[in-house]
Amino acid sequence: MSATGYMGGEVLRVLLDHPEVEIAWLTGRSGGQLADYHPNLFGLDLPLIHPSKVVPCDVVFLTVPTRPTLDVIDTLLEQGARVIDLGSTFRLKDQADWERIYDLKHTHWHLVEEAVYGITELHSREVTNARIVANPGCFSSAAILGLAPLVNAKLIHLEHIIVDALSGTTGAGAELSKPTHHPEIGNNVVPYNVVDHRHTYEVEQELGLIAGQAVQIHFSPVYIPITRGILDICHTFPKEKVTREDVLDIYREYYRNHEFVVVYDQQREEGTSWQYRPYPWVSAINGTNYCHIGLDYDERRNRLVVYSALDNVGKGGAQVGIENMNLMFGLDRGQGLRRKGLHPG
Amino acid sequence: MSATGYMGGEVLRVLLDHPEVEIAWLTGRSGGQLADYHPNLFGLDLPLIHPSKVVPCDVVFLTVPTRPTLDVIDTLLEQGARVIDLGSTFRLKDQADWERIYDLKHTHWHLVEEAVYGITELHSREVTNARIVANPGCFSSAAILGLAPLVNAKLIHLEHIIVDALSGTTGAGAELSKPTHHPEIGNNVVPYNVVDHRHTYEVEQELGLIAGQAVQIHFSPVYIPITRGILDICHTFPKEKVTREDVLDIYREYYRNHEFVVVYDQQREEGTSWQYRPYPWVSAINGTNYCHIGLDYDERRNRLVVYSALDNVGKGGAQVGIENMNLMFGLDRGQGLRRKGLHPG
Amino acid sequence: MSATGYMGGEVLRVLLDHPEVEIAWLTGRSGGQLADYHPNLFGLDLPLIHPSKVVPCDVVFLTVPTRPTLDVIDTLLEQGARVIDLGSTFRLKDQADWERIYDLKHTHWHLVEEAVYGITELHSREVTNARIVANPGCFSSAAILGLAPLVNAKLIHLEHIIVDALSGTTGAGAELSKPTHHPEIGNNVVPYNVVDHRHTYEVEQELGLIAGQAVQIHFSPVYIPITRGILDICHTFPKEKVTREDVLDIYREYYRNHEFVVVYDQQREEGTSWQYRPYPWVSAINGTNYCHIGLDYDERRNRLVVYSALDNVGKGGAQVGIENMNLMFGLDRGQGLRRKGLHPG
Amino acid sequence: MSATGYMGGEVLRVLLDHPEVEIAWLTGRSGGQLADYHPNLFGLDLPLIHPSKVVPCDVVFLTVPTRPTLDVIDTLLEQGARVIDLGSTFRLKDQADWERIYDLKHTHWHLVEEAVYGITELHSREVTNARIVANPGCFSSAAILGLAPLVNAKLIHLEHIIVDALSGTTGAGAELSKPTHHPEIGNNVVPYNVVDHRHTYEVEQELGLIAGQAVQIHFSPVYIPITRGILDICHTFPKEKVTREDVLDIYREYYRNHEFVVVYDQQREEGTSWQYRPYPWVSAINGTNYCHIGLDYDERRNRLVVYSALDNVGKGGAQVGIENMNLMFGLDRGQGLRRKGLHPG
Repeated sequence: MSATGYMGGEVLRVLLDHPEVEIAWLTGRSGGQLADYHPNLFGLDLPLIHPSKVVPCDVVFLTVPTRPTLDVIDTLLEQGARVIDLGSTFRLKDQADWERIYDLKHTHWHLVEEAVYGITELHSREVTNARIVANPGCFSSAAILGLAPLVNAKLIHLEHIIVDALSGTTGAGAELSKPTHHPEIGNNVVPYNVVDHRHTYEVEQELGLIAGQAVQIHFSPVYIPITRGILDICHTFPKEKVTREDVLDIYREYYRNHEFVVVYDQQREEGTSWQYRPYPWVSAINGTNYCHIGLDYDERRNRLVVYSALDNVGKGGAQVGIENMNLMFGLDRGQGLRRKGLHPG
Repeated sequence: MSATGYMGGEVLRVLLDHPEVEIAWLTGRSGGQLADYHPNLFGLDLPLIHPSKVVPCDVVFLTVPTRPTLDVIDTLLEQGARVIDLGSTFRLKDQADWERIYDLKHTHWHLVEEAVYGITELHSREVTNARIVANPGCFSSAAILGLAPLVNAKLIHLEHIIVDALSGTTGAGAELSKPTHHPEIGNNVVPYNVVDHRHTYEVEQELGLIAGQAVQIHFSPVYIPITRGILDICHTFPKEKVTREDVLDIYREYYRNHEFVVVYDQQREEGTSWQYRPYPWVSAINGTNYCHIGLDYDERRNRLVVYSALDNVGKGGAQVGIENMNLMFGLDRGQGLRRKGLHPG
Repeated sequence: MSATGYMGGEVLRVLLDHPEVEIAWLTGRSGGQLADYHPNLFGLDLPLIHPSKVVPCDVVFLTVPTRPTLDVIDTLLEQGARVIDLGSTFRLKDQADWERIYDLKHTHWHLVEEAVYGITELHSREVTNARIVANPGCFSSAAILGLAPLVNAKLIHLEHIIVDALSGTTGAGAELSKPTHHPEIGNNVVPYNVVDHRHTYEVEQELGLIAGQAVQIHFSPVYIPITRGILDICHTFPKEKVTREDVLDIYREYYRNHEFVVVYDQQREEGTSWQYRPYPWVSAINGTNYCHIGLDYDERRNRLVVYSALDNVGKGGAQVGIENMNLMFGLDRGQGLRRKGLHPG
Repeated sequence: MSATGYMGGEVLRVLLDHPEVEIAWLTGRSGGQLADYHPNLFGLDLPLIHPSKVVPCDVVFLTVPTRPTLDVIDTLLEQGARVIDLGSTFRLKDQADWERIYDLKHTHWHLVEEAVYGITELHSREVTNARIVANPGCFSSAAILGLAPLVNAKLIHLEHIIVDALSGTTGAGAELSKPTHHPEIGNNVVPYNVVDHRHTYEVEQELGLIAGQAVQIHFSPVYIPITRGILDICHTFPKEKVTREDVLDIYREYYRNHEFVVVYDQQREEGTSWQYRPYPWVSAINGTNYCHIGLDYDERRNRLVVYSALDNVGKGGAQVGIENMNLMFGLDRGQGLRRKGLHPG
């Protein structure tokens, strides 16, 4: 639903290659042709229909804001569709928070209660039976995946978790804006929404569930001049001294059955001035459903820093939506999602 | 053969997803692990062997310079392998030209005579039976595909064909160099080898075959700060006045049976100041085996300008190699190669 | 006049450092503060006034479209100001061409007749006495400076001059547009207005004056992901064989008294595969009033290729406007304009 | 001394425009011409001499590693020169720390004791009389300037100060390396040296002096695909609740007499989704000696985040060296350093 934005385009791109899926319809409020929005799909003969013309199908990917989502959700559910919402309508479980943050009255809170927060590594069982999946925010996915093993292991203090997030400009969407105008950002860095960002609440919610107590996330994003990809840099303070190797073990164990989270555990090369090899690169996972997680430990100052890299449009958006679809329909969880990232790219 | 460079990495990345292929071995002269060169392939358990340790297999992709190619070619052929050479060892059919341009004595000229120049749109039948395929140069592929229909239709003067080629920096390879040092190229343009570039001779050879007479190509490349992708801008002068629509017809007809060349024939929007829609974007085809070709005509000055966009590592290198492999082994020509490009990307 | 766009910002930035200039007023139709448009000028206490509030001063830089230019020009001249127009209102001397190309009726053609086309290297004497200077288009400046010596020396055929122009995205201005949205252009190339571009006519006009006969320019621009800078690649065909050294001599002689055009005559290094050193880089001249010109000759195919690099906002816009101002007011022609470019940058 | 790297080139570029300075000599160990390293300086007739050929002069800028610095320092001082060292030889006051971190025995520790750490905003008086100035590290300058007012006001807890630093690739220098190879970094982010980075110790030293007690800095850098510029993102936890306005007042007061630190105090626009305006952009200060500092406060979680932006080669390197020179020689502190940054750029 809405194939004209970046999320819709990516859902479509990957589904076209998915052996178990047939595209029923695509919407586009402003009309035009698919290639006007996605030149990579030039030549495909798939018309854009108006949102009011949707017909029954098995699953609907929603890539629209809250208002149009709430306008159409009852019809979709009545038609028997299961819904994967790539927006923020169903993510937060605290209504007061949601209504304050999004500055809207939520008219379908019972559906929020029913919806499953679609981080597959945490909620795969609930996703299997969900009628509505609330796909996580891109920054949230990176932070939750990066921090969950530490919180779960009760290894760190929960009041001083700092997350700096570096985002590619697709994170701002297809709508034009000054901070994503190339002359402005092409050789620049743009901090924005630097305190109380909406995604903060998703991370606090999910890590709080794991911790069984409140967790405070100190989160600030910046746009940098890359097109895709997020690197969440998570600073944490262990309760006791640890070693890099021990913590890597915790991560490897936590993600043992989750092929799309890769613990990037390359060795540090002591004595070289270029210590870049042990840490994840967004260029390695762009275009994919993979999340690469690496980390290091400053034993002198007892700080553990975790790097969590994923593609905001891929594992942080459209592709995790398809992973959720695979789970919901009893398909191989990774079907259509295993192609490795383009590197260099 | 040599999985450590960008071409080798891309051959491997795409073959991993190819249902009919099993990787027999990979070479890497300097050792180390695959992920040291290709972080996107982190976690794959495929060791790099020394080139002297190769064992028999069905097909070998060569991604090494001429000397090591000639060192190993006899062994490979004796072992019964068919060879797809991504280097320049077997591309030119004029020995004097080759030896002058590459400043080497060619020790295996009989193999050049046997080799097929692997532009699938021109030589698919010969490729089917080839023992050695000489994969074309990246600039050459873009120029040949962009100009072949015009030359074939005898539409243009053959002595004033000008090709400006804009290349992503992967075109320079994985070896470090000043012009691809990010501080130098990150906000810059770098012309290099601006006259008598080696790829010129490939284009002249192939278009000459089509024309049945000598063709002169005036070719100059630049590096620009993109990672992948080539845009060849081809200026030609028609013998008589033409129209954009008529020429587009010629292209559509010429490439009717070739799914990987897409004639990008979006309409011009008269009266808008932003006339960008009718022309191909490299971002639309990066990571793929597709070539997008568009064009326009200046009727006031009788110039026809053709834009040919492909991924230097994809359709201009590794992926067309796999297309050649598919043809050589009687597989579906496009198997493993149909995923659409990452856009934005 | 209009300090809110990129040209206005650059005029202001350089004039602030000019010892002989005092800023009288700045206009901004939408109001706000200077730093909203130019964060580099944050802290300056210069208010933006409405265009209707201008008061007399010595010289006015106009950085607005034709309609507002024609609305205000009579007032400015009556107030005794001399005018440097950075737009296209006064550049072309053929009224029919102008009105067709800009799709407007020109209401002040007598002022066009009076205006001097402000390429200082060609018209410095007329500029000295001009009441109105028509500052050249950015692509035009690069092409005219790059080709004038060859046309003047009657060295080349005049019907096959091809100019490919690579432009930074500031060339598209501060107004938001899809082709300059970072996700679209950040790792891409965008051809646009590829035939019959308006700047073509300026180049044909000025080179025609030098040649004493009609000159045809075959011109196509692309946007590439750099913020500033233009590289015009000019392909020409000499009437007779030449040598690189001889042609460089012609350029050195032609620009002997013009400090802002630098003949970039580094030696070619024969036998190296990286022949990048002899050619100009836009990164070397960005932010400046310098134009770097280099060239090479393909003796096998008798083609001479000229590279002309300048900053579209600097020597191709605001800074050459200041050079014109210096000439108009009898100041040192290079005052305030001699700082070398930021490299890397 | 050594005009071939990026720091040497920038010192030279700015000094060429400084009315009180004459260049006595430049060194370059590998020979060649200046323009081979700095094409922006093409045409300058300044030969590179061998380091062993230096002759007496008033002031020497050292831009070489520790070993060659210690080899030449006695000669320079005997010749009566005052020295501005842009390297790390004289920055840290704890010999054990220095020798461990740099893995070298320091042979001239008495000179370290004499040297002044050249943050002009903290030590302008000592700089005036210094024989040796230890120019600060680029990350250190940004962090110290960003945090000094808070530490001085005793506003924050000193054990949880986290600094994420985003750096342009010139920070890695002119030497080629894989993480700065354009195909690798062009659309990527590269974390490196992520714990116990050498610059950490400079920040701890200088803030410790202000605090009168130990300060712990948790510092991690990344390279991003911009050429110049550093953004230090500093997360701090106030001892009590504060307001953004009150903290801005503290900064304005602290830097009242320091023109090169600009408190970027644009208003937040409540209710807009694009809250980018109140924060500094590196593009605004690149090429300059300015540092822009902005900040914001998350009252819900009591976190204060400070953004400190400067040009690693400018205010973070060569240009603050020139500011130190101006102070040492009794010149106007800002002479030659007031040109505003190139924006866009």
